[in-house]
Order: sequence, then structure tokens, then C-alpha cells
Amino acid sequence: MKRTFNLSAGPAMLPTSVLERAQKEMLDYDGTGMSVMEMSHRSSYFDDIIQDAEKNLRELLNINDNYKILFLQGGASQAFYTLVMNLKQSGKVAYIDSGNFAKKALEAAEELKDDYGLEIDVVASSKEDGYKSLPNYPDTLEGYDYLHICSNNTIEGTQFKEFPIYKGIPLVCDMSSDILSRPFNINDFGMIYAGAQKNLGIAGLTLVIIREDLLGLNDVPKMFDYKVFSDKNSMYNTPSTYPIYIHKLVTDWLLEIGGLEEIYKRNKEKARILYDYLDESTLFVPTADKDSRSLMNVTFSTGNDELDKEFVAYTKENGFENIKGHRSVGGMRASIYNAFPIEGVEALVQLMKKFEEEN
Amino acid sequence: MKRTFNLSAGPAMLPTSVLERAQKEMLDYDGTGMSVMEMSHRSSYFDDIIQDAEKNLRELLNINDNYKILFLQGGASQAFYTLVMNLKQSGKVAYIDSGNFAKKALEAAEELKDDYGLEIDVVASSKEDGYKSLPNYPDTLEGYDYLHICSNNTIEGTQFKEFPIYKGIPLVCDMSSDILSRPFNINDFGMIYAGAQKNLGIAGLTLVIIREDLLGLNDVPKMFDYKVFSDKNSMYNTPSTYPIYIHKLVTDWLLEIGGLEEIYKRNKEKARILYDYLDESTLFVPTADKDSRSLMNVTFSTGNDELDKEFVAYTKENGFENIKGHRSVGGMRASIYNAFPIEGVEALVQLMKKFEEEN
Repeated sequence: MKRTFNLSAGPAMLPTSVLERAQKEMLDYDGTGMSVMEMSHRSSYFDDIIQDAEKNLRELLNINDNYKILFLQGGASQAFYTLVMNLKQSGKVAYIDSGNFAKKALEAAEELKDDYGLEIDVVASSKEDGYKSLPNYPDTLEGYDYLHICSNNTIEGTQFKEFPIYKGIPLVCDMSSDILSRPFNINDFGMIYAGAQKNLGIAGLTLVIIREDLLGLNDVPKMFDYKVFSDKNSMYNTPSTYPIYIHKLVTDWLLEIGGLEEIYKRNKEKARILYDYLDESTLFVPTADKDSRSLMNVTFSTGNDELDKEFVAYTKENGFENIKGHRSVGGMRASIYNAFPIEGVEALVQLMKKFEEEN
Repeated sequence: MKRTFNLSAGPAMLPTSVLERAQKEMLDYDGTGMSVMEMSHRSSYFDDIIQDAEKNLRELLNINDNYKILFLQGGASQAFYTLVMNLKQSGKVAYIDSGNFAKKALEAAEELKDDYGLEIDVVASSKEDGYKSLPNYPDTLEGYDYLHICSNNTIEGTQFKEFPIYKGIPLVCDMSSDILSRPFNINDFGMIYAGAQKNLGIAGLTLVIIREDLLGLNDVPKMFDYKVFSDKNSMYNTPSTYPIYIHKLVTDWLLEIGGLEEIYKRNKEKARILYDYLDESTLFVPTADKDSRSLMNVTFSTGNDELDKEFVAYTKENGFENIKGHRSVGGMRASIYNAFPIEGVEALVQLMKKFEEEN
């Protein structure tokens, strides 16, 4: 079975064993004579799947009962709005502006500003340096309903190693592009959310993990009210059942290989191989500042647009897909999420070396 | 391959050939070495899929360019809110209350009433008779931003045969449970929307078909603005790519078998077999009034809760799933959407006859 080394920023590679399992069960899940796609979300079969998915997540992230897990739709982009609707209290909210998606979350809040009476403070920003590094954040912070961050900046290739934690201020984090890539302490967060198409499974599922006391603060239209979905175990309306099933298979896989400690080890090793080469290369230059580098999205360029283009074409001819960087940054981006194999990283570095020799 | 006769109201059965195709392509779509699940939504591969899906829909429903097709998330339940945000002008809006989901759409508008300055009129309702029939609607109607209906009442088993069309009032229709089951004139509608998990594919995809002049009427938060998604060809953010792929396969199948004329013929025949038997049975009684009956959801009971329960168990022992009626109606419900085979209906009637003889 030919498997392309797909460096897409998302939707992204899935573990081959997950795809094989899904393939095997496609027409007959566990002897039911039905595909998971065809199952009533109210059936006992699907109930087992969604409960297992939640159980897996709780085990992987050490999540206690005081956090609720919601399986929603709409992507992180929809959560940019619904988090405001759900978490706003005094109206004073803080954002760290560390890249494209952090800025989008901020812009969503700005859209809601008048209707929700928000006072939005950008308490740290690295916009000035083109988001090449993570911004320095204040030593103290108080009086905010929440502080919003994006833990990994997919487009720019930067990632928080430690989190800005302030007593009394719920930390709200878009973790779309690095959730389940490393261990962290869930209790540092008020709410975490993530689109599933990078490390959790496939597009169409949005995960929200929220501290219980942050539910029910506001009168929110039911479809956007996290409390309604929490009370209904994510089934206020029909959830995206098949993406939840794939998410369950992905978390099964993570547990099988040894959980977050093991995947973190692998992710560090994959990134090390790439960054080590980039640091010694005389052709390729890494884009992000060294101490802000992401383990998930490795951005780099040759400094020459034409040569970048040639290299992108060269990787495509050699079994790779989607190494082209985002148009706002240019150059290349290797997204090496959990499911991207170390063999792919090694093969990529070999190819880069060859290209460097030839150019 | 054992295939269960799954009478679920949704998610529901898919054509076996669709599942087989998805199974075959699971690890390698068209020689790409990637699963559709893993493909960047910005890739040319996925672009072909979403364009084909739109092309298929336009062909099946004779949709001209003055209607836009959107592939969204959140289910019909989310559209209950977003349709108000997008279509509201004067604030005077009309609803027909013909069943559970029609009422839910109405209740969503009521939730938004104060914030959006709505004046909501229920211009027809069959609530009084327990939604056993479709309500009579007025001969004339004017001065409304839109009239909202639900074309098929999934829970109660009633279905509009003709639509309440008033000049100058956009007809907005939740068609979740009967879209693509029969031909209709798209030009009679201002907007149609549908969750995909009954006749369009699987949960996680919501289809919106909207007349161009109804886009951009209001200042709507971007994630809920139909115009934003129309301008971005449904890719303002990552769409639910795999559900769109399944939808494409389902519409491929419909075109292959002969389009809506053919499926309508089959659906009429399936419903006829069931209703004919129900009309002559001395044990089972159909729930919906004769002239309001749905071709998609056939509701009935024995009039005896214990016996209903026995019959539900009896069908399960004999290869059927999900015939239990919704708790608000009780009894049984056979959802026989497009992909439910005629053999399944014949087998069900045989089983009902046998049960009738024994009881």
C-alpha cells in the first residue's frame, strides 16, 4: 500500500492502522450489519463509541469530572464566537496575538464587541516581528473574564512551551494544531478547544473541554450554549457521528502506543531531525525564531521564491504532498503532526540534502 | 455481506454501493496515496470532490446559477438560528407549525426575538390535533420577511405534497428528511436547508441552497453569514470534508439510478406497500391522517404500549433496527429514506403480518 507523505497543515495524515480499521468496519461495525455512518446517534452502539471517545480523552489528558467534554461542530472558527457568548461576564477580555489564528479569534471578538459590550485588550502581540516569535506576556494580569491564546501557530510555526497562567483568570486556548501532541496540565486551563482535523481525527468535529464552573454563565441561544450540550452529552442535536468514531479510533491508537509521553518523545525526535538539518543547511533557512519553534509545523524557505517553488515541485515528484507554506508566510511548511511518520521526516531531510547539493 | 434493515430516522441507511466505494478508497483515493479524510480542503483533489458534489446537486434539482449552494456544519438545528440572522429584514416573520422540528425552528426564532426585534406569527398550526395532519394555511399572506416550513415531519410522519407559495414572500424550508426524495421546483423557494444524515449522506454536513438576492441582507457575524460562505465556496474555514465526499458519492448514486424521477417512483412504491398493509391490518393502525402521510417516515401503532414494545423487540430479532417511534408519538416509525431497499419494506410487511397472526 503506497502511502503518501502528506505534510498538510490540516486536514492531515491519520495513522494507517486507524484507516485500516475504519475500512474493515465500513459496512459492518462489530457484527451489527450497519456502518457507523448509518447508526442512530441514539443507539446503544453509537453511545458506546462516544462514551469510549470521552473515556480515552480523559485518560490521555488526565481530565477529572470537574471538566466537561463536548463534541461539537463548526470548527475552531465557530468557537471563536461561541466562547465569547459563553464566557463573557464583565465584558473585559484579554487576547494574546501570536499569529494568524490568534488574530482571527481576536477579530471574532471584535465583531461581537458592540452586541456583547466587550472591552478587548491585546495584552501581548508579536505582530510587529511578523509573528516569527511568541510575544512576551505581562508578569501580572487581573480583572479579565478570560485570557485567550492559541497554543500553536500553525501558519507561522511557533508554539508555546509554557502557558501564561494568571490566578483568577480562566485561560482559554485554541489548541487545534497541537492538542494530544504532548502532556500538559488540564487544570491550568478554563477551556480548551480544537478542530479535529490535525491531531484528533477529521474535519467536522470540534472538541471543547471546559471547566464546569464556566458553564451556564450567560443566557446563550441553545445551539451555541455549552451548558445545553454538556447537559445533553453532546447530543442536543445530531452530532457528527462518523468524525467522533474516527476520533475514538485515533485516541485508541494513542493509548496503544503509550499515550502522550510516547507521542511527545516521537514528536520531539521528528522535529529535532528537521530543525538540526535546517540549522546546518546553507540553502534552507528556518522561519520561526529558535526559542519559539513549533514541534508540529516546521516553517522554512530558501529566501528565493523561484527556488522555493522548484523545491515544492521536487517534493511532489518524490512522494510528498502539501509542503507549500501558507501564502501569508511563503516558503515551505512541513506539518508533522502525531500521525506523520518519522520515516517521512527522514526521507524529507534526505530530499532536502539532495536538493541542496543540486542547487 | 449481512446488511441490517435499518429503519432509523437519521442517521440512516446509505446505499451499499456508496459504502463499498468509500471502503475501497479509504486508504488511497484515486491513486493519491491518501484518504479523502487526510486531504487538505485546499487541494485540487478535494476541490474536484466538492465541485462534483455541487454539480450533481444542480443536475438533480435543476438549480440555476441564481441559487447558491453552501456546505455547512451544525445541522438543521443551527440553521434554525442562522436563517433568522441572515434573512430578517423588517422583523415580521411567519412560521407554519406542523410538527416537532417545525416547532423547534419556531422556538429558535423566539429565542432571538428580542435581540433581533422579531414579530413572529404562526400562520398555521396542527398542534391541536397532535400534529397528525398538516395544517390548513391561509389563502393569502403578505408583509413577511419569509415563511418558514418543514416539508416532512420526521417524528409525526406527515409531509407536504404541495407547498404554501405566496408571491413576494421567500419560502424557507427545512427539507432535512425528504430532500432528494422527489422532484420539486427549486424556484418556489427562497432557501432550502437540510442536515445530511437522512437522504444526503452522513451527519456533520448541512446543506443550504439559497437564492442569491437573499444573501448579504444583514450584518451577520462571519461564521454565521451565508454570504461569507458563498463568496468563499463553503471554505471560509475547513468544511467537513469527508461528509462532503460521502454526499458526492450519494448524489453520484442517485444520478446513476435515474435521478429524482426514479427515486420518487421507488419511494412511492415502498410507502404504498406499507400503507396498503396498514390500511387493511386489524392490529396495526397508521398514526398520521391519510392525506398528510409521509413517504419517508411511516408511523403506526397497535394502540397497546405493551404490544408495541413486543413488536419492536420482534423486529430486532428478525434483522431490523430502530423501528421504535419517537417518545413524543410512541408506537413505531419506519423511516424508509432513499437508501432503504424495497426488499426491506416487503420483509417488514411479512413480519407485521406474521406478528398480526400471532397476536
